[in-house]
Amino acid sequence: MIPTVEWRDGQVRILDQTALPGTVQFVDCVEYEAVVEAIRTLKVRGAPAIGVTAALGIALGAGQFQGTDPAAFQSWFIQVCDRLASTRPTAVNLFWAVERMKAVFAGEAGTPIAGIQARLREAAQAILEEDVRINHELGRHGAQMIRDGDHILTHCNAGALATAGYGTALGVVRAAWEDGKYIRVFADETRPVLQGARLTAWELQQDGIPVTLITDNMAGALMKQGKVHCCVVGADRIAANGDVANKIGTYSVAVLAKAHGIPFYVAAPASTIDMRTLTGEGIPIEERHPLEVTQVHGGPTIAPEGVEVWNPAFDVTPAKYITGIMTERGVFSPKDLAKHFG
Amino acid sequence: MIPTVEWRDGQVRILDQTALPGTVQFVDCVEYEAVVEAIRTLKVRGAPAIGVTAALGIALGAGQFQGTDPAAFQSWFIQVCDRLASTRPTAVNLFWAVERMKAVFAGEAGTPIAGIQARLREAAQAILEEDVRINHELGRHGAQMIRDGDHILTHCNAGALATAGYGTALGVVRAAWEDGKYIRVFADETRPVLQGARLTAWELQQDGIPVTLITDNMAGALMKQGKVHCCVVGADRIAANGDVANKIGTYSVAVLAKAHGIPFYVAAPASTIDMRTLTGEGIPIEERHPLEVTQVHGGPTIAPEGVEVWNPAFDVTPAKYITGIMTERGVFSPKDLAKHFG
Repeated sequence: MIPTVEWRDGQVRILDQTALPGTVQFVDCVEYEAVVEAIRTLKVRGAPAIGVTAALGIALGAGQFQGTDPAAFQSWFIQVCDRLASTRPTAVNLFWAVERMKAVFAGEAGTPIAGIQARLREAAQAILEEDVRINHELGRHGAQMIRDGDHILTHCNAGALATAGYGTALGVVRAAWEDGKYIRVFADETRPVLQGARLTAWELQQDGIPVTLITDNMAGALMKQGKVHCCVVGADRIAANGDVANKIGTYSVAVLAKAHGIPFYVAAPASTIDMRTLTGEGIPIEERHPLEVTQVHGGPTIAPEGVEVWNPAFDVTPAKYITGIMTERGVFSPKDLAKHFG
Repeated sequence: MIPTVEWRDGQVRILDQTALPGTVQFVDCVEYEAVVEAIRTLKVRGAPAIGVTAALGIALGAGQFQGTDPAAFQSWFIQVCDRLASTRPTAVNLFWAVERMKAVFAGEAGTPIAGIQARLREAAQAILEEDVRINHELGRHGAQMIRDGDHILTHCNAGALATAGYGTALGVVRAAWEDGKYIRVFADETRPVLQGARLTAWELQQDGIPVTLITDNMAGALMKQGKVHCCVVGADRIAANGDVANKIGTYSVAVLAKAHGIPFYVAAPASTIDMRTLTGEGIPIEERHPLEVTQVHGGPTIAPEGVEVWNPAFDVTPAKYITGIMTERGVFSPKDLAKHFG
């Protein structure tokens, strides 16, 4: 797989996911504001990938500082962190990564600026590498829940492209496939931004894992025909009580799964679990521009001009719909999160 | 409103719905095969509109016969009917209209060919006018179920464009609006062909009825927020036991409505009720070309080349999810259909 995001010649190279699957192109960020823009415009997306990219962006921004005054460096650093943190409100991995970079900075207080800059680059790279390791662990645990022959429904893209590599929900799929289980993924196309059609189908096709694309509104009919054996999705933030914010439409899939007696799993690293948010009601939900709905992937306008649009990027699935949360530490009931991650 | 379909200078003029809302263009059919093609390619769609158009197409085809041999005319007529009946498998109004035209033909046996041709044209026109009258009656009954201030979720387009005029589900909306009820419609965009975004939003906007466009996967989140008070959809075929075939995604909406305690209504003329099909399992479901999914409204390709696609045009909603079936004769429980329409 092509890396989602990486250090490359002192720059942050981001695979431009808005152009996939038709075109493979990159954004080479020389300045941190380019990273801010790339996150904001969904060139890189997916909660873990946003966290990793923010860390790289902060390291890049810190490296841009050329003065010698420690106080000036600190206020510059805080500004860089704030800019990265302001890009998107829902994915908690973003804030987790910013906090972690701030802690690295704090730990280096009093040391030379050049040293702190180097240390921040190392820390960001460590976050990136750790994310891939975590996803392999998560996949190994999650794959225990997948049986040979299963049809797995997924929504949005919680794959290698949503992380630094391997994926969360698709990490579970990959681990099951590597275990020799013959599985098939049904990928919701995931309107409005079509991460399922453009990214999930593309990733799985590249790995030779059987995948069937459906529109979001076909999931119910597919379940009714007995063709879905479990659902595995990612998460943008998991509240302390096990409520899960994820891509808009996840809630509908969860309700449909419950109505059909189908297990519904959420795959996410511990950094997605936010113990400071007590329930799903406390998770801020980003609303995005109507053009995402009325113009599909840069194509022609599909709705009358001036029509009112509601375009929330995420929804919240209450814990009661969730069979298990797959993490790098094991698979847990959503109601047991506080016990294991508190 | 622009007529969906009409007689015009001895031709059948069809509003090309595939070009809406961007372009208003017509297909003027001089020969019945053009009508066959227009139905097959969704230039005209919606169960009642397909029925009306098929009747006009049969009258047009009958008029093309130029011989004098009654037996030859009869076999030509049967061929025309068979061609029209072959266009799409799910909407029963199509077969109802073909049968009705055949009955008119049979009733004229032994009379001059020119007279039969004229009689078939009159019969088709009568079916068209009757459809508009029926929709007004249906709307009047259905609107009783709508309260002032209601938010009504609809799926696909069961509007003037799906009928000869006024609409079924949107006929109910129009009647409620004409009664002075301040309502708002939430229109599912309805992938893959986007009848909700392209047609429902356009129709309602033209009539000044408040409408908000959402992607199909937002319906659940909207219901969870308490913003949907009832659902009203159309139907392509209703089985004797009250099971309803309608646009793919209808079943998901119905399951979600039930999970949120929201009434779910189906609005359809009696000609959509098929007493010869005992349950929903007997309704043939058309599967359409993968390009409908992978290329949106003629825009760029949104999925990797060669990806497998499942593309059923309809699904079946079991009667237990349906609060009431709104018809021109009143609103009935799905389990009472046999009593009223048997």
